[in-house]
Formats: sequence, structure tokens, C-alpha cells
Amino acid sequence: MKKTIIVTAYIDRLSTIKGLHNFDSCIAADGGYLNANKIGLAPDVIIGDFDSSQLPKKSNAEILALPMEKDFTDTEAALDLAIKRGSEHVVIIGGLGRRFDHTLANLGILAKYYKKLSHLAFMDGYNYVYMLSPGSYRLQKKIYGTEYKYLGVSSYSDYCENLSIKGCKYPLEDYTLPKVTSLGASNEIISYNAEISFSKGEIIITHSND
Amino acid sequence: MKKTIIVTAYIDRLSTIKGLHNFDSCIAADGGYLNANKIGLAPDVIIGDFDSSQLPKKSNAEILALPMEKDFTDTEAALDLAIKRGSEHVVIIGGLGRRFDHTLANLGILAKYYKKLSHLAFMDGYNYVYMLSPGSYRLQKKIYGTEYKYLGVSSYSDYCENLSIKGCKYPLEDYTLPKVTSLGASNEIISYNAEISFSKGEIIITHSND
Repeated sequence: MKKTIIVTAYIDRLSTIKGLHNFDSCIAADGGYLNANKIGLAPDVIIGDFDSSQLPKKSNAEILALPMEKDFTDTEAALDLAIKRGSEHVVIIGGLGRRFDHTLANLGILAKYYKKLSHLAFMDGYNYVYMLSPGSYRLQKKIYGTEYKYLGVSSYSDYCENLSIKGCKYPLEDYTLPKVTSLGASNEIISYNAEISFSKGEIIITHSND
Repeated sequence: MKKTIIVTAYIDRLSTIKGLHNFDSCIAADGGYLNANKIGLAPDVIIGDFDSSQLPKKSNAEILALPMEKDFTDTEAALDLAIKRGSEHVVIIGGLGRRFDHTLANLGILAKYYKKLSHLAFMDGYNYVYMLSPGSYRLQKKIYGTEYKYLGVSSYSDYCENLSIKGCKYPLEDYTLPKVTSLGASNEIISYNAEISFSKGEIIITHSND
């Protein structure tokens, strides 16, 4: 299974990101190539419109230039490319903090693409975020070398039905979780792993640290 | 009309926040009282569970202690209090970056409460974010002394129908905007103000700067 890491231009708490060296491919979205270098990754492709960053002066990477005026973000173009080139497991570094229009766009990207891959996540120095469709899952505290204290369970659809959470500080049993609530924030995995299941809706999982 | 400002514990780019001195009341959510002091505001109420911050040693503010284990966040408790005490216009400082479970909880809070008030917004040093229900609106570039370059228009409901945007770099006419897209990010107001209208759904407006 081909695994690709995408590095974007804006990443919160970049210095704490580690454990991402076992990927088959690294794509930098626009100025993300500067961040890739900072976490010890050498992109094999750099894709973007380079409206807020310059093209690298020296690089062995393939460079794909996009038009500045377009209906999608550089991050979406990078993800689209990863999928076209056969990736099934993609982790996107950045895109969750700072400009909130980008955060919402990335949430839209997550929802649009997650079923096309076996795994798709956004990650920065605070969070590891992905989406789940109905089913049963085991969630671990440690992901790519980082142990996360908090587990957030949020409904992306209007309601998430028959939600059960086990192995956590605040368990739930057959609960209907609405999108419009703050109840799912700040749970904590207290066993070796958490068990989560639900029958209808879409869920956003956030593993996070303060 | 009573205007309240709520200051939370985690605020991105706090140093750029200004122009918030004409409010009738200031409520600090938990450790937010430290941030309130940093932007020159003296809270008249401090509410929270004080699980990650200490109670202030000296303060003229009313202090309301919440239980640590509860089904709502300190931010929601502060907003609930503001409404109970007659506020109709509330700006919440912070809550959009860092931990993504908190960001999603705050988006849920925005959706749950915005119709109960004449205005409800989240603000930090990058963004000014609020929600709109169907209708016609004029949006200005400058809000509370800050001029915002970017305007993001995102659907919070599955679809937003008959969306028209005028006075912007990328205008739209009778467009159906899905939740699952990055298209609404990075627009720009190019006239004195933008005009936006839609007939169905709920929209999240983000005014932002890099």
C-alpha cells in the first residue's frame, strides 16, 4: 500500500512533528517544501501556484505549477495528485490552524476524499484528525510516535446515531450525538485503546494535546 | 443593546487584537482572565473549572466556579451566562486554533447559539468568524479596527442554495455550495463592501488575514 505525506505551507507547532519517515512519497503543497525540509523530509514533488512563496532555487523535486486563480486549494491539488499516483494512505501536515477559511476548506477536503482512501488524516503539532463512516473501530493513544492525551468525537453530519465509546474517561452507550454540541470535546483514552462504534452519520476524530 | 466580550484561555496571535473597548461587559472563560489583562480588558466575571489554570490571586471580578467533569466547555458556560444576563451581541476571543476538538466544539456552539443573539462571533489574531441564516447581507472589510484581506464563505449545512456573492474577486450567482468543497476559501472583498445572499442552508463567514 503506497503511503504519501503532504506538507503544507502553514503548520502549527512544526517543531514537535516527528516519526514520519516511513512514507513512500512526499508531496509539498506550495511553500510547504520549506516546512518539509525543516522536519527532515525531501519532497519528490512540489505542487502549487506559488502566490505566497517562491519556487525553490535548488531542488531535485518534480515541480508542477498551478494557475493562481482556480476553484481549489493547493492542498486539494496535492491530494488529488497523490490519489492519481496510487496512494491509499495519506497524511497531510498542517491546514488546521491560523486562517479559518482554510481550516473549513480542509474539513471539506477530508469529507470529500476520505472514502477514496484507506486512511486520510490532517496533522500538526497539536492534532491528528480523520473522519469515520459507520462501523466499529479501535483507536490508539499513540500515532506516528506521538502520544495524544485527548480524544475528541464530533459529528460531521447533523446527527450521529447509536454512538458507543468504551475505554475512555467519559464513555457513551447508544447515544445520539448532534453536530451542534461541545459534548464530544476533551475525552481521554484511559485503556490501552478506545473502542468506538456508530450506525449512522459521519464522525470527525481528533487526537490532541495541549 | 448589551454587548459582551468573552475572553478564552487559548488565543492565536493575541498581540494583534485591538479595538474591543466599547463593550458593556467582559467575561473571562477560565484562564482567559490572563489574556484579558494582556489586551487591556478587566473582566467583570471569571467563570470556569480552573483545571488548567489557577484562580486569580487578586481580582475585583465575580468568580463562578464550575465542576471539572461536565458536559459543556467553559466557553459555552461563559456564553450561556452572557445570554442569561441580557447580552444580544457577543464576541468570543480565541477558540479557533490549536486543539481541533475545541475548534469543532466552538463551531457547534456558534451554530447552537447564533440565532439567540443579534450577533455572535469568534475572533482571534487571524480571523473574525460568524454564522448566517438565509437572507441578504452587506459585509465590510473592516471589523473592530482590523481590515481583513480574505473572505471565506463555507456551507455549514449539507448544501447552501441560491448563493450570490457580489463586490468580491470571485463573484457567484445563484450557486449551490456544498459543505464538501474548498471553493469558498480565499475570496476577497474588492468594493467598499461585499453583498451576499442565499435562500436555504446555513453559512459560516470567515474574514481573515495571513
